[in-house]
Amino acid sequence: MRVLVINGPNLNLLGQREPSVYGNTGLDVLVKALKKYGEELGILVDHVQTNSEGELIDILHGAIGRYEGIILNPGAYTHYSYAIRDAVASIDVPVLEVHISNIYAREEFRSRSVIAPVCVGQISGLGIYGYQLALDYFRRYYNEKNV
Amino acid sequence: MRVLVINGPNLNLLGQREPSVYGNTGLDVLVKALKKYGEELGILVDHVQTNSEGELIDILHGAIGRYEGIILNPGAYTHYSYAIRDAVASIDVPVLEVHISNIYAREEFRSRSVIAPVCVGQISGLGIYGYQLALDYFRRYYNEKNV
Amino acid sequence: MRVLVINGPNLNLLGQREPSVYGNTGLDVLVKALKKYGEELGILVDHVQTNSEGELIDILHGAIGRYEGIILNPGAYTHYSYAIRDAVASIDVPVLEVHISNIYAREEFRSRSVIAPVCVGQISGLGIYGYQLALDYFRRYYNEKNV
Amino acid sequence: MRVLVINGPNLNLLGQREPSVYGNTGLDVLVKALKKYGEELGILVDHVQTNSEGELIDILHGAIGRYEGIILNPGAYTHYSYAIRDAVASIDVPVLEVHISNIYAREEFRSRSVIAPVCVGQISGLGIYGYQLALDYFRRYYNEKNV
Amino acid sequence: MRVLVINGPNLNLLGQREPSVYGNTGLDVLVKALKKYGEELGILVDHVQTNSEGELIDILHGAIGRYEGIILNPGAYTHYSYAIRDAVASIDVPVLEVHISNIYAREEFRSRSVIAPVCVGQISGLGIYGYQLALDYFRRYYNEKNV
Amino acid sequence: MRVLVINGPNLNLLGQREPSVYGNTGLDVLVKALKKYGEELGILVDHVQTNSEGELIDILHGAIGRYEGIILNPGAYTHYSYAIRDAVASIDVPVLEVHISNIYAREEFRSRSVIAPVCVGQISGLGIYGYQLALDYFRRYYNEKNV
Amino acid sequence: MRVLVINGPNLNLLGQREPSVYGNTGLDVLVKALKKYGEELGILVDHVQTNSEGELIDILHGAIGRYEGIILNPGAYTHYSYAIRDAVASIDVPVLEVHISNIYAREEFRSRSVIAPVCVGQISGLGIYGYQLALDYFRRYYNEKNV
Amino acid sequence: MRVLVINGPNLNLLGQREPSVYGNTGLDVLVKALKKYGEELGILVDHVQTNSEGELIDILHGAIGRYEGIILNPGAYTHYSYAIRDAVASIDVPVLEVHISNIYAREEFRSRSVIAPVCVGQISGLGIYGYQLALDYFRRYYNEKNV
Amino acid sequence: MRVLVINGPNLNLLGQREPSVYGNTGLDVLVKALKKYGEELGILVDHVQTNSEGELIDILHGAIGRYEGIILNPGAYTHYSYAIRDAVASIDVPVLEVHISNIYAREEFRSRSVIAPVCVGQISGLGIYGYQLALDYFRRYYNEKNV
Amino acid sequence: MRVLVINGPNLNLLGQREPSVYGNTGLDVLVKALKKYGEELGILVDHVQTNSEGELIDILHGAIGRYEGIILNPGAYTHYSYAIRDAVASIDVPVLEVHISNIYAREEFRSRSVIAPVCVGQISGLGIYGYQLALDYFRRYYNEKNV
Amino acid sequence: MRVLVINGPNLNLLGQREPSVYGNTGLDVLVKALKKYGEELGILVDHVQTNSEGELIDILHGAIGRYEGIILNPGAYTHYSYAIRDAVASIDVPVLEVHISNIYAREEFRSRSVIAPVCVGQISGLGIYGYQLALDYFRRYYNEKNV
Amino acid sequence: MRVLVINGPNLNLLGQREPSVYGNTGLDVLVKALKKYGEELGILVDHVQTNSEGELIDILHGAIGRYEGIILNPGAYTHYSYAIRDAVASIDVPVLEVHISNIYAREEFRSRSVIAPVCVGQISGLGIYGYQLALDYFRRYYNEKNV
Repeated sequence: MRVLVINGPNLNLLGQREPSVYGNTGLDVLVKALKKYGEELGILVDHVQTNSEGELIDILHGAIGRYEGIILNPGAYTHYSYAIRDAVASIDVPVLEVHISNIYAREEFRSRSVIAPVCVGQISGLGIYGYQLALDYFRRYYNEKNV
Repeated sequence: MRVLVINGPNLNLLGQREPSVYGNTGLDVLVKALKKYGEELGILVDHVQTNSEGELIDILHGAIGRYEGIILNPGAYTHYSYAIRDAVASIDVPVLEVHISNIYAREEFRSRSVIAPVCVGQISGLGIYGYQLALDYFRRYYNEKNV
Repeated sequence: MRVLVINGPNLNLLGQREPSVYGNTGLDVLVKALKKYGEELGILVDHVQTNSEGELIDILHGAIGRYEGIILNPGAYTHYSYAIRDAVASIDVPVLEVHISNIYAREEFRSRSVIAPVCVGQISGLGIYGYQLALDYFRRYYNEKNV
Repeated sequence: MRVLVINGPNLNLLGQREPSVYGNTGLDVLVKALKKYGEELGILVDHVQTNSEGELIDILHGAIGRYEGIILNPGAYTHYSYAIRDAVASIDVPVLEVHISNIYAREEFRSRSVIAPVCVGQISGLGIYGYQLALDYFRRYYNEKNV
Repeated sequence: MRVLVINGPNLNLLGQREPSVYGNTGLDVLVKALKKYGEELGILVDHVQTNSEGELIDILHGAIGRYEGIILNPGAYTHYSYAIRDAVASIDVPVLEVHISNIYAREEFRSRSVIAPVCVGQISGLGIYGYQLALDYFRRYYNEKNV
Repeated sequence: MRVLVINGPNLNLLGQREPSVYGNTGLDVLVKALKKYGEELGILVDHVQTNSEGELIDILHGAIGRYEGIILNPGAYTHYSYAIRDAVASIDVPVLEVHISNIYAREEFRSRSVIAPVCVGQISGLGIYGYQLALDYFRRYYNEKNV
Repeated sequence: MRVLVINGPNLNLLGQREPSVYGNTGLDVLVKALKKYGEELGILVDHVQTNSEGELIDILHGAIGRYEGIILNPGAYTHYSYAIRDAVASIDVPVLEVHISNIYAREEFRSRSVIAPVCVGQISGLGIYGYQLALDYFRRYYNEKNV
Repeated sequence: MRVLVINGPNLNLLGQREPSVYGNTGLDVLVKALKKYGEELGILVDHVQTNSEGELIDILHGAIGRYEGIILNPGAYTHYSYAIRDAVASIDVPVLEVHISNIYAREEFRSRSVIAPVCVGQISGLGIYGYQLALDYFRRYYNEKNV
Repeated sequence: MRVLVINGPNLNLLGQREPSVYGNTGLDVLVKALKKYGEELGILVDHVQTNSEGELIDILHGAIGRYEGIILNPGAYTHYSYAIRDAVASIDVPVLEVHISNIYAREEFRSRSVIAPVCVGQISGLGIYGYQLALDYFRRYYNEKNV
Repeated sequence: MRVLVINGPNLNLLGQREPSVYGNTGLDVLVKALKKYGEELGILVDHVQTNSEGELIDILHGAIGRYEGIILNPGAYTHYSYAIRDAVASIDVPVLEVHISNIYAREEFRSRSVIAPVCVGQISGLGIYGYQLALDYFRRYYNEKNV
Repeated sequence: MRVLVINGPNLNLLGQREPSVYGNTGLDVLVKALKKYGEELGILVDHVQTNSEGELIDILHGAIGRYEGIILNPGAYTHYSYAIRDAVASIDVPVLEVHISNIYAREEFRSRSVIAPVCVGQISGLGIYGYQLALDYFRRYYNEKNV
Repeated sequence: MRVLVINGPNLNLLGQREPSVYGNTGLDVLVKALKKYGEELGILVDHVQTNSEGELIDILHGAIGRYEGIILNPGAYTHYSYAIRDAVASIDVPVLEVHISNIYAREEFRSRSVIAPVCVGQISGLGIYGYQLALDYFRRYYNEKNV
């Protein structure tokens, strides 16, 4: 099984940016840990980060037929990018939305995701564990299906 | 480690109620599976279900000093029970909100949780796997702490 | 045929409470009249009153397989209890919402029912006749079906 | 006793229009049934249908002193015709608002009636039985008064 | 100079309808008084009343080239008839909106006029004197212009 | 093929009313041009204009079984007539909404059409060409179907 | 009879300020004309202008027992001064609100008067004639009363 | 004179819960102090705490005929329990709403009380003194009445 | 201890203005009673009333270093004067907001205080007793502090 | 004459994505058909598709002086991209907004276009014919101008 | 060139009031510095501070013909004083709005200025430098004009 | 000291686009002037313009450790780009938001900046002088710090 992890705008600064909110782990450490954890689960994990909305849409399109699952942290695009929402709805790969911080415990505008309604689900506030739980989810989901 | 799973209103009908939304697994099967999975993780899992808001608050209060984590599916109280929110905020046990269905893909009123802002995080839309991932979270969270 | 009449919060004070709005008939007189009218129609009428939201949900669940219809006056829970709404939607017994007063001619907050969307219909403003008309409805509804 | 039944816009298409919502009974069949049912109750039932807001107001005015009750299905005027609302409030004949479908279970705009606040009450969602229950109501209402 | 007085829906019931709000003077008495007062001012006063929105629009169109001013009491159409608003804006005859009652001291919905923005002005709450003051206005307005 | 063009309130003043917004072409010239253009396309074009909401509904009903398409410019009824919306939804003739001016570039209230959701589509802002493009649409639509 | 004319903030600049909106007549000319017109009607007209909300309230209080009517142009205080509203409601002298320009044809915020609900009525958009018509109103109002 | 003090949800944790907001005094200490202060004023003070909305309604009903005044701290039910509001309005015992913290200086949702409109008044933000002042109020209120 | 009582706009009419809302006691009687009650408590009570927002701000500033507490009834400024709010927040004297009537049981606009968030608390609806309770509060508050 | 067709985000998936909404025709087929149809009309049709907002703006800027018209389907950017709106307003090439589906018959958020107010007009819901009608429009528009 | 600096409510407390927000510089120091800086630029700087809305309006009126520019910090009047807005719009002296703190980074109500729309511009958040930059602006603005 | 000036979408058209709003100065002239003015102040000024949101975020990230200040004109992204807001908040370089036109005097949507709350301040409406004042600000800000 292949899973694509997509990190959106400003997540390249992970570990440097507002550590009290996002923790101290840098993006490269996170990616390495996810790939390793994926190996344990028998999942090939690819990762990509972009600050560009258009590129993020291109990446989602490019996942068709190549991945069984996508873990998407859309960063602040979460709150207004109907174009990313449409891209998620346009492809037949299940997308799981992940947020490192609890978006419901911050500024009012962060409590609305325009993308969540077309995802399979959302994990929010569990730090970088959220990505690992998302991998677990895809593992369980396909195990059951394949049985 | 002890974790308390609290299921709120109408979750006693799990498996019978709107199976296209909530699946076919009954509550007792879910509870048995969670307890078993807890054992694997070294977590003692207790479970309680109630349709009463007041009782739910009493249960939360009763968890003080007895559990290291609470997995809470507040059912429809999610959307208006500021009293449960206050109970969650009043106790020092971390609470993780779980929803079986993707609450962001249903009626408008379900997309707002008044409780999430005082929880550590939220898992939504991942079916009954959500509860298992929540147990995983507490496992990882305390492992790291204890190191 | 069996029909359950459920009266929600504060309806135990019927006849004493704001008589200009709710009339002078007490709850026991109403219940007796309904049972008698049910007999005429060949309907066994049971009645229960509760001020508790959780209990009201329990009662709705308990009606599964025991009643052909429910007449529900949810009192002020009408305006915010999504938990009762879910209970109504969870059971396969048709529920008819009844209000003694015209809820559209009073305070603004009373003009919205969060429960009505999952009921078969609503009767409002016709005083205690509303309950009798609801019995008539179930009589007609099942007569036609049984033909 | 005389009761006037007024059906507003598009109800002339009853039975042809969206049968899944409004059923298969045509308007003429409904009217015949209502007149017959009225006879049983000792009520002379008149009926009029119009698609015109102004005509509907004229009809309401014309009912002064000629009818003891009006059963009004204002169709989509329900949601914005303050002019019909004023007409209802201007006459001393009690008006009962009836809707065939459950207006609270459809598009958002249908859940607000600007006319209900000046009616004696509202029956919604009970199909064409709603009209019959309305006749029952007027029968009971005047019987009690006349005693 | 010719001025057309247009009274909209339900104003035919003037004097009978909610006298505490609209007073006891009937429409025919009002019209007679206005015509007489017009004579004193050298204004030929025509009057028309209609409950129909479409007819009201036809009347406004018909005033082109025939009247120097229009006194319009749009009744409840005031609050939603953008079609009448467009008719007022389409003709080159100045229109003065008049309300017998103080529309700002009643139900919330009455405090918004969708027609006022395209009228020359509005007189509200001065009873039937409002119509006379409107005639005074046209007298003064044209006197000054003609000087 | 027969197509009915319906022009709503105030469009009888076309060419006279606010020419900077609606242009200088009168309604009769427009109708003549449309009929002629229809002939070229093999479409029999009928036309009707009314300022009355009720009449407009009657006309829509009357089109059942007589026309293959309707071109509807509902004028200001666009923004509030749920009754016309229901009429459009009630008939099985496809209706295409046309506006001469760009309704999205004018007053805020004009940017919402309550009728568009039940039409096949909408053309706005293209002047009187909009009607011709609508005829083109029906030509293409049925050509494809008939092939 | 004595009538007090109160002009609120910025009306001291009448004639100089935005003449396209407010005209060219200066405040002193207006006052002189009103006093003269009052004499014709047998009304003693006093006038006061202030830019201060507190002073305006003092003036309203000071009118108790000294005037039979007040003509109030509250300027921009119209849109937010609940303190002036309370002052108007606190005194037993009838207050008529007057605006020179049509406040419904300008910025959105000007279309709401928080003071109008406690006045006898409102005249808007009739230029400085509005003050004269207000005097006419008081003349008529008291004449009728005194008869 | 007898006064009933009712403390709603989560107030059983007083002294332990968010001490920076609610202070360090425990509920039992508060109750003892109130009873003692009541004795000084000649008031018999009863106290009850519940987390249940339904129970709170039962308690209010039970106060009829037994208490001259009720001091109610509805906790978070303040912000949405129309059922408690109805209970307060249904009984003829005056109810005074008390909040320990200043509910207007916290989260937005806390600044609206749906119960206050049917209480005699509200005291907010004065800490546990608020209860004592409420007792003072009832003392003064009845003293004056009895004179 | 010195406490300043500030009464805002229209409170000079206390006793004359809407007695059903504000009671019959005049302002001078109230002030005398407060001073006397202050003496009993060992508090020197000063009083000032003003209708002017600016003056009210000056008075608040002037209280710095001269009073231990301020009892403020801001009248209708309560609902919009952010300038008074800033003045309260700018000084280090604790301010207690008092309203004679229950502002939550009146017009909608009165249920929002823009000043309350920066006060220590609010007393509403307890008539003129509210001022006395406010004095009691300062007495208790400083007694405890001084112990 | 040269016309540029710009298709925004996700339209590269045309024919594959939600065919029930967008039909089965792929983007390349559409482009070929438009170019061919353009040839018939004497219009040179260029086409470009991009998922990137910034690129879309660059393309619009690049059209200055090179095209007589632009047909723009902004995809989901329609609903929030004020930057594209500014780009459209910044260039002197007329832009016609086209949507394949009826955006008024889908999710609420799709019914608002922030770009339409600065376009010449909008065609919505007519499938891929919409592009052809847009070409027709430019043909007619310039023919008339050139005459 | 003469420039008038107007500081509104509570700015007399500058340096004492919430120093973390407004800094430690007192108003007199600020004024002295501005006058000195003005001298360097060849600008005669006058200064006035008032807590009164009415006085602030008088000051604005008084600036006509006497100043080439006004630097206005309206304090909290920024957020609701339409009367000051009208005064700014009434005079022909350009007004530049200045705020010491970043009003967009504080309470929600501070993020809306009702005065900004009629000013030449706004400087916010740059501390007391904002006033100096405003002087620079007038210097540059008039230099360019005079060239 | 180094300062980076970033101009967002459509600002490459400066001087050509809506000159009545944005003036006639082209972007290259502006940049040259800013660099020259920077030299006078001892500031090295770099400039970059982009229409792409993603690129703008990359540029902000790239400024870390290389610039002491950023002058940002986010164009229309101002009103919705939470992604740019996050980028500004993620870096430790102070950002000053500048707008050439007065964004508070234009369309409603322009009066809200989602970026301003995380900037040090905002300058709006002062034309291209705004950029120069921003340079002045950084000059003064660092001078004071360095002393």
